[in-house]
Amino acid sequence: MLLSVAAFAQGRMSHVSVVPAPARVVSPVIDGTKTTFSIAAPQAIHVSLHGSWMNTNDNCYGPLVQDTQVGVIPMTRGENGVWSCTIETPAPELWTYNFYIDGVYVPDFANPLIQRDGTRLLSILLVPGKLSENYDGATQHGNLNQVWYDSPTLGFERRMYVYTPYGYEDKANKKTRYPVLYLLHGGGCDEDTWESMGRVTAIVDNLIQKGQAKPMIVVMPNGNASQSCSPFLRIPAPDGAAESARQNRNLYIHSLVKDIIPYIESHYRVVPKPEYRAVSGLSMGGGHTLSVTAEYPGTFAYICPMGCGGNRNEDFVKGLQGIKKAGYKLYWLAAGTSDFAYPGAKVLDEVLTENGMQHTFYTKDGGHTWSNWRIFLNEMLPLLFK
Amino acid sequence: MLLSVAAFAQGRMSHVSVVPAPARVVSPVIDGTKTTFSIAAPQAIHVSLHGSWMNTNDNCYGPLVQDTQVGVIPMTRGENGVWSCTIETPAPELWTYNFYIDGVYVPDFANPLIQRDGTRLLSILLVPGKLSENYDGATQHGNLNQVWYDSPTLGFERRMYVYTPYGYEDKANKKTRYPVLYLLHGGGCDEDTWESMGRVTAIVDNLIQKGQAKPMIVVMPNGNASQSCSPFLRIPAPDGAAESARQNRNLYIHSLVKDIIPYIESHYRVVPKPEYRAVSGLSMGGGHTLSVTAEYPGTFAYICPMGCGGNRNEDFVKGLQGIKKAGYKLYWLAAGTSDFAYPGAKVLDEVLTENGMQHTFYTKDGGHTWSNWRIFLNEMLPLLFK
Repeated sequence: MLLSVAAFAQGRMSHVSVVPAPARVVSPVIDGTKTTFSIAAPQAIHVSLHGSWMNTNDNCYGPLVQDTQVGVIPMTRGENGVWSCTIETPAPELWTYNFYIDGVYVPDFANPLIQRDGTRLLSILLVPGKLSENYDGATQHGNLNQVWYDSPTLGFERRMYVYTPYGYEDKANKKTRYPVLYLLHGGGCDEDTWESMGRVTAIVDNLIQKGQAKPMIVVMPNGNASQSCSPFLRIPAPDGAAESARQNRNLYIHSLVKDIIPYIESHYRVVPKPEYRAVSGLSMGGGHTLSVTAEYPGTFAYICPMGCGGNRNEDFVKGLQGIKKAGYKLYWLAAGTSDFAYPGAKVLDEVLTENGMQHTFYTKDGGHTWSNWRIFLNEMLPLLFK
Repeated sequence: MLLSVAAFAQGRMSHVSVVPAPARVVSPVIDGTKTTFSIAAPQAIHVSLHGSWMNTNDNCYGPLVQDTQVGVIPMTRGENGVWSCTIETPAPELWTYNFYIDGVYVPDFANPLIQRDGTRLLSILLVPGKLSENYDGATQHGNLNQVWYDSPTLGFERRMYVYTPYGYEDKANKKTRYPVLYLLHGGGCDEDTWESMGRVTAIVDNLIQKGQAKPMIVVMPNGNASQSCSPFLRIPAPDGAAESARQNRNLYIHSLVKDIIPYIESHYRVVPKPEYRAVSGLSMGGGHTLSVTAEYPGTFAYICPMGCGGNRNEDFVKGLQGIKKAGYKLYWLAAGTSDFAYPGAKVLDEVLTENGMQHTFYTKDGGHTWSNWRIFLNEMLPLLFK
């Protein structure tokens, strides 16, 4: 197709070149113990693959953090300009990967499975098996609602995700009331991240379908008090929001109980009692879990911080004692042994013990990673509301 | 950070190389009449920019269709390996763009605004102005719900998006009932596409907030009878779904009226009458609009096919006559004058006239493009339910 000069009236350019359409490729291809990745890049000089199975950095802020170098596997150019490489299929897990085209990060656009972590897009290699069995495959799906609610505590309207389980909408269940898990995200993330990176709806769908978890509502708020919603939408919070958040670091904590819980309890068929409320979160969200339960003891009967730590400061210990006094049904904390938060999690474990508070400290190998957040979620959900 | 050998136990490789973290860039930067795009690519040989303002192909299946070549602007490498180019800021519009890194398509990951069209991810350049004023900027947002519903007509459960307007959840409105627009997508798209590419929630939010459109519910189903949901989710329909769809090409049309409307009318506060139902769609969705209104005359009082054509076949004309006989309030069709569907749209216009059917044929320049679908939506919504 020839290009008309008129079409470029708005583009100031001295030279026009064209790029031929890429060859169609199928990627990735899992074939038993071998997995092959391909990308059409006939003009590239160096093409390589990075996969999360290669990560030495046990931090979910992984290989694209400034100044961190990543390991890659060089790919081989085929005759038709399609580059490929074949690796031993990694163990069952939700891995992520990308290509580097002459040093530039590129997802695998032949692959529809993609995750968004901030502005990073990661292609997904989902290797089936026991560990990953709940990351897809459910045939009974709940609904995922993107909900705007008024948050007077912060002074503006904000967005959260609300998952309602399969069957919630059935007329047969119209008198049924459900328990609620408030699931909080980590630093640099937003209300979309637990779903995008954590596969929440797939995991909850599967566990409910298998009868291993109670049908429940899952609320995923935005834990950044300077934001109205995921920055991905580019819908700014009002002027002054960031400053307010800086001046009062507990605004979001208060909004969980004063704005979000009342909204959920007046808009969804839930049981408005502590025994039907769970709160959990990863990293900063684990910190929020500790803060909100200390600030509002007796509000949540199920308390499940992940990837965060405690301390022996007087206020912190008093907060735990307040929770003990008010009562709870489950205190379940989790951290990987390579997690930088692990030492702090051990302190929390010890302080709970020292204060006579029944709890479970779930640990496994690995670090501050989405692999572990998904595994922890999978472990924790069957324990709730029972 | 040195890389340990142990971490590569699962990757079979003969050589390991590393990729340094990219420099942070800000892109795009709209500065009055100049717009600059940048990407860090120190190892690349050729970097160029493609923008939709450059498209000569007036088809929304645009420049990445097989065998179509695209025009690009070469970018200039700066000293720090950051490539950039500056263009005259295009006219107000939602444009899309990407880079080519040594011939490989790469979105602009410095830019959070992104659209998904199938597996294609396009970066968004939103140039503010009159034409684009409703593509963002609303401060009163409706909710967007991802809803799974049973579709007995097709034989399996399927997903659709349901937008409820700002205020729908307010207790003050709990007795208010709303009209419904059923908004249908084009070929190769899915239930996510009208939102992702068409900016539906932004447009409807803005028009409602400005008092130019009636508060309404917008239902966006998946029009591919072989799919349970967007292929992006990789949740397959049951075996046999594709074959059923092939054997009975009207299954989806019937499901709109037999499965989707009843679901909406029993789960949302709507007025279950034809005067409170509109149906519209682009391209294949326009075809679905024509089919469902012919098959179920009198079901929808507002009929708004876009980018599709009619004919003078006996069945088609009889279908229109049935609509006339049953009654309707608005018949509004739209097509760009460069659209390959424009001749057929003119035929539809003529046949409506020949049969004494009041209607509006909205035309403008441009083709079968998302630019036009958004503009048509913006024109059409204020006409509904009045």
